Amino acid sequence: MSAVERIVAKDDSDDIGIARHLFEEIAARTADIEGVSRPAFSDIETQTLQFLEAFARKQGLDVWYDAGRNANFRLPEHRAADRFIIVGSHVDSVPFGGNFDGLAGIVAGLICLTRARRRGAGTLRPVHVLALRGEESAWFGPCYIGSKALTGRLAPAELEARHKRDGRTLDDHMSDAGIAMEDVRAGRPLIDLSKIETYLELHIEQGPLLIGKQIPAAVVSGIRGNIRHRAIRCVGEAGHSGAVPRAFRRDPVLAMADLLSRLDESWSTILGKGDDLVLTSGIVGTDPEKHAMSRIPDTVTFSLDIRSQSAATLDEMRALLDREMRQVERERKVRFEMDEELCSRPAQCDAALVAQLQAAMQRAGQKPFVMASGGGHDAAVFASAGVPSAMVFVRNRNGSHNPREAMDLSDFVAATDILYGFLEDRR
Amino acid sequence: MSAVERIVAKDDSDDIGIARHLFEEIAARTADIEGVSRPAFSDIETQTLQFLEAFARKQGLDVWYDAGRNANFRLPEHRAADRFIIVGSHVDSVPFGGNFDGLAGIVAGLICLTRARRRGAGTLRPVHVLALRGEESAWFGPCYIGSKALTGRLAPAELEARHKRDGRTLDDHMSDAGIAMEDVRAGRPLIDLSKIETYLELHIEQGPLLIGKQIPAAVVSGIRGNIRHRAIRCVGEAGHSGAVPRAFRRDPVLAMADLLSRLDESWSTILGKGDDLVLTSGIVGTDPEKHAMSRIPDTVTFSLDIRSQSAATLDEMRALLDREMRQVERERKVRFEMDEELCSRPAQCDAALVAQLQAAMQRAGQKPFVMASGGGHDAAVFASAGVPSAMVFVRNRNGSHNPREAMDLSDFVAATDILYGFLEDRR
Repeated sequence: MSAVERIVAKDDSDDIGIARHLFEEIAARTADIEGVSRPAFSDIETQTLQFLEAFARKQGLDVWYDAGRNANFRLPEHRAADRFIIVGSHVDSVPFGGNFDGLAGIVAGLICLTRARRRGAGTLRPVHVLALRGEESAWFGPCYIGSKALTGRLAPAELEARHKRDGRTLDDHMSDAGIAMEDVRAGRPLIDLSKIETYLELHIEQGPLLIGKQIPAAVVSGIRGNIRHRAIRCVGEAGHSGAVPRAFRRDPVLAMADLLSRLDESWSTILGKGDDLVLTSGIVGTDPEKHAMSRIPDTVTFSLDIRSQSAATLDEMRALLDREMRQVERERKVRFEMDEELCSRPAQCDAALVAQLQAAMQRAGQKPFVMASGGGHDAAVFASAGVPSAMVFVRNRNGSHNPREAMDLSDFVAATDILYGFLEDRR
Repeated sequence: MSAVERIVAKDDSDDIGIARHLFEEIAARTADIEGVSRPAFSDIETQTLQFLEAFARKQGLDVWYDAGRNANFRLPEHRAADRFIIVGSHVDSVPFGGNFDGLAGIVAGLICLTRARRRGAGTLRPVHVLALRGEESAWFGPCYIGSKALTGRLAPAELEARHKRDGRTLDDHMSDAGIAMEDVRAGRPLIDLSKIETYLELHIEQGPLLIGKQIPAAVVSGIRGNIRHRAIRCVGEAGHSGAVPRAFRRDPVLAMADLLSRLDESWSTILGKGDDLVLTSGIVGTDPEKHAMSRIPDTVTFSLDIRSQSAATLDEMRALLDREMRQVERERKVRFEMDEELCSRPAQCDAALVAQLQAAMQRAGQKPFVMASGGGHDAAVFASAGVPSAMVFVRNRNGSHNPREAMDLSDFVAATDILYGFLEDRR
């Protein structure tokens, strides 16, 4: 084993130790009935940031909170840097979620900083590690809330979104977390965006591609955009399940089933054309207060989440959804009541950064591999705010947004190596 | 106006007064956020029986409770009768239901008794009016609970059914109501069935047929049987809505939509063959605790209520349901978990009674009209216990099991006239 190989082996074992410690401690502190729950802008989220703060201070890192109450970390020697790279990710999770979605990116950033400290100053370009709040849409509806607020891009309507459990507005929850709401409401960035040279984010892959291809990590080419509706209401007419003949019915459940089956069929057709699309109705339900087996319900509510790497495909699906709804309304004498559309445009990663990350991948002894991201990420917000942005994916089993997320720490280190290789000062 | 016409006019106005008083008082006492809620075996149900008791005592009627804690009413002159006709119906309602479903039959029975009292003793054959508890399946799952208990036909599994709100068993709730549970559990009738000459029930029509045909009342030929499942679970696999490609998905919501659409299509085909069928999924829902727009859910739960006048059609649908589920399971890599099937066989009304009721209809100046019942009724239980049973329907707008039930009191009196004409002693 050469001297360099010994350093690398020692580094890897230190990195794995730190990663394991952080992942295990945070999983234990934010455990729910199953998996973890780290609600956006909650005390649990704040306490998770404080736990990271305590760890980072012990490692000799600078720690501060920006006006969005996100935690920031850097090496002391980068205090004077005029411009810097952000390595960011989010600390919140969906309800009963997995531990790695979001958190892995923050831990990777911290590992880059602690590794650089071990190796001695001057090896890294100036970096801020950014632990963002509130990326998941599960709690309020809008997604990327923390990064949108930070970059001055959170819409007034989004601030009025209500928490799915307590019904209070996002504005209230963010105020409670101590965020500078006047600036957020006015759409003013909370940080000086011109100082950010690059935004990088490491994230677990949320689909099964890297597992299938047996590749530990990948560089991301772009992020799927989406059209989302949290609660579309189909309104029919209540009646007795046994006594109303089919011709007299206005059954919203069968109308919803019909609509979803039509969309599902179109999905298949669109994939057949070679276009990119995923479609999900994750939330469906009749009104529990009125539940009776022998009652044709008067309403049913359902969510829709439609994603594509192509803005044109999203536009096509929006038109198709409208057309199919009108058709089902006519055929089944029901009415669809739409809520506000939430949407985000597909985002492209910066081509130069993608190339540099591929080069870093090669230097780390990995065969370069580039793929699209199915899930949305804070990187899309920074990209649309004009910051050159890119991402690295880590292989992960069982998807994300569920407690069975499974990322091997050796894969995590392989992906962190790509980040680190990019950040190294090679002048 | 002849003397007889004057008596009839005076009778009608007295009857309408009593009916209005009883309907309005009970609606006010059992009002919910919308409509009325009279839960099976609840204090509200007991109090409703007690209100009827107080009214009946004031009218000089005998009142007593049987071992099933149902209220019974009769003319004092019928105390000695060895055999009697029951005019029965139920006092409970679905949650947020209408006021007339069930209650109308009891009020009609009481009006027969008070009318007979006004006209003088000896005009009616011996009658017991029976105000039953717990007919609606909305609260526990099983239906006709009160009449099944009374006739010794409540199954042990039904007693283990749990209340949809408090989760306690039906057995517990019935015990709390003071019912003789040892007999119920042993399947022993709580009354001497051999003394019941006939079971008659007046009920609002729960479908739109009499409205469409502009007929105030009808005689019922038979009652649709049903196959019901309160909660079929479709189990797939949770995942990130944006990151799992279609080919890797096991989406239970789209599987449920597919299944319901297939059943809906078969329904249409079966009607086309001229067979009788209705099909409803009144309760559908993903798990609210796990709701996130961006999560492919792992499960969805839905109810099924399939009814037909033909036992063969029900058997055909049971086989079809199984076949389609297996098909959807194969195609979509999900699993359907069935709960226990609740079922009741189609019931035929007694042919002689149907003919006698038609004759009574004619004597009341109405053109005889016979139709099938879509909804199930306690009459089906008495029929299957060997008691000759029949029913009278009243025209009613907007179906039942919803607050917009609308029965005109003049139609109600017309239907009561059929009952009364049947009960009159014409020897």
